[in-house]
Amino acid sequence: MTPSNQPINEFLEKTRRTVNEHLEAITESIKGPKTLLDAMEYSVKAGGKRVRPILLLATLDAFEESLAIGLDVACAIELVHTYSLIHDDLPAMDDDDLRRGRPTNHKVFGEATAILAGDALLTYSFELIASFKNEHVPDDIKVELIRQFAHASGAAGMVGGQSEDLIAENKASLSVEELEAIHYKKTGKLIIFSVVAGALLARANTEQKTNLEQFAYHLGIAFQIRDDILDIEGDIETIGKPVGSDDMNEKSTYPKLLSLEGAKQKLLEHSEKAIHFLENANINHERLVQIARYIINRDN
Amino acid sequence: MTPSNQPINEFLEKTRRTVNEHLEAITESIKGPKTLLDAMEYSVKAGGKRVRPILLLATLDAFEESLAIGLDVACAIELVHTYSLIHDDLPAMDDDDLRRGRPTNHKVFGEATAILAGDALLTYSFELIASFKNEHVPDDIKVELIRQFAHASGAAGMVGGQSEDLIAENKASLSVEELEAIHYKKTGKLIIFSVVAGALLARANTEQKTNLEQFAYHLGIAFQIRDDILDIEGDIETIGKPVGSDDMNEKSTYPKLLSLEGAKQKLLEHSEKAIHFLENANINHERLVQIARYIINRDN
Repeated sequence: MTPSNQPINEFLEKTRRTVNEHLEAITESIKGPKTLLDAMEYSVKAGGKRVRPILLLATLDAFEESLAIGLDVACAIELVHTYSLIHDDLPAMDDDDLRRGRPTNHKVFGEATAILAGDALLTYSFELIASFKNEHVPDDIKVELIRQFAHASGAAGMVGGQSEDLIAENKASLSVEELEAIHYKKTGKLIIFSVVAGALLARANTEQKTNLEQFAYHLGIAFQIRDDILDIEGDIETIGKPVGSDDMNEKSTYPKLLSLEGAKQKLLEHSEKAIHFLENANINHERLVQIARYIINRDN
Repeated sequence: MTPSNQPINEFLEKTRRTVNEHLEAITESIKGPKTLLDAMEYSVKAGGKRVRPILLLATLDAFEESLAIGLDVACAIELVHTYSLIHDDLPAMDDDDLRRGRPTNHKVFGEATAILAGDALLTYSFELIASFKNEHVPDDIKVELIRQFAHASGAAGMVGGQSEDLIAENKASLSVEELEAIHYKKTGKLIIFSVVAGALLARANTEQKTNLEQFAYHLGIAFQIRDDILDIEGDIETIGKPVGSDDMNEKSTYPKLLSLEGAKQKLLEHSEKAIHFLENANINHERLVQIARYIINRDN
């Protein structure tokens, strides 16, 4: 779809458009009762940076593979990310009224439908991987993708991280290690899977996979630190939620535990490590380096 | 595991014990934070009739296949059934305090953990199918199982049915056709999948599959009618929830739309149709006939 030598902004814009179009086609193809489909579509179309699909597709680009072979898996990951936001926003969880500058799903459709819309998006993500047809993606790769995808998303990954995060909110303060362990599960594992899925689809060798996993591990931490910094320094119009909301919720964040300067220093360290592993992966890594720099320096 | 000529009660008891032991081993093997795992285990171990796993295993029995090749898929279906009960019981949905005679998941663990426990059980069901190893279950069968499993469980199936059921509660009364359409999605499709999964694992031919699908379709309706009748005639100790709760909730049921006698007549008609299709399936159908009779005549 996209040649490797495109300027990064053009690549991001074009890839995001491709992902959004494909997500739209996918949600339109899902069968079900109208209210439920409306609620699913509302959150899928709410936009967002599409970081995870972009990471998967940029990994394919690094192996000089056609991005088309990864589009369905990339969208499946975005569906799981979307469902997790719907459930996290529920009154019983983070009780958020706004998401990306718009009312949260349960504010528009009610709690019951929001829970079901999340359930249906999660379920459909697996149907999507199991049903797309591509001659370059044989069934053994699909089974391995589904296995690792579910592992990254479930009790041992994202859902487990959200559970730990809720418990941590009742604690006075976390150590940096505890905070990192929660984020590793809650957001890190799905970010790592996005890169690993690209590597699996491209039949990466063990050395390439190991380096890419390490790259994504450090990128995931950097991503979260940047998020915490944006909550202090960001602009409400740009980030789509009230600045300082972590502080009001008394959440443990990197700036709170390390000071703002300390957090920025840590962000730099993990960025450098991420890029170091990329350079060792023996792939055409320039595009991924650009994506990493974009994620680390983003203003929303 | 079990020879076909065992008495039905012995088969049911032994199969249920095998399923329960395997479910226990599975839940113990899942990694994650303790609170979350405790909540998942609480509902998985709450018991129940294990109708779906038994249907899958009895279908394998009808093809004279080893039941062992279907045990993981059977348990995956039970995990999805369990998650659906946890989410259905939530205050935003049916708001139930009791399930199988014990406090519902959110009553014990709180709403947030109950939502997450459901999410994690759903996610793990796909990991389970993708990760079990059996030389008789190649990857193309696994991919097809996952595709049909997700389809039966998601917006087009179980989740969609629950969504329609919630909307129907605000309506004055449903027609029998409307009621049947909701149950077909909410419970029918997963019951059908349980039988179809057995047929897929046993490499059934098209004629066998079509007849088994029709069998399971009618069995699913009969199952639901029996449920509605038990809500009127059942014994609270045996069914584990207050008798007459459908009536108090003003839910549309078969006895309400057809009278108790009319519902019993309809139950008989669908039972006979179910058994008719079984007899046409050209398989060793005796065990499945027994299971069908057990489901239709059960007292809990």
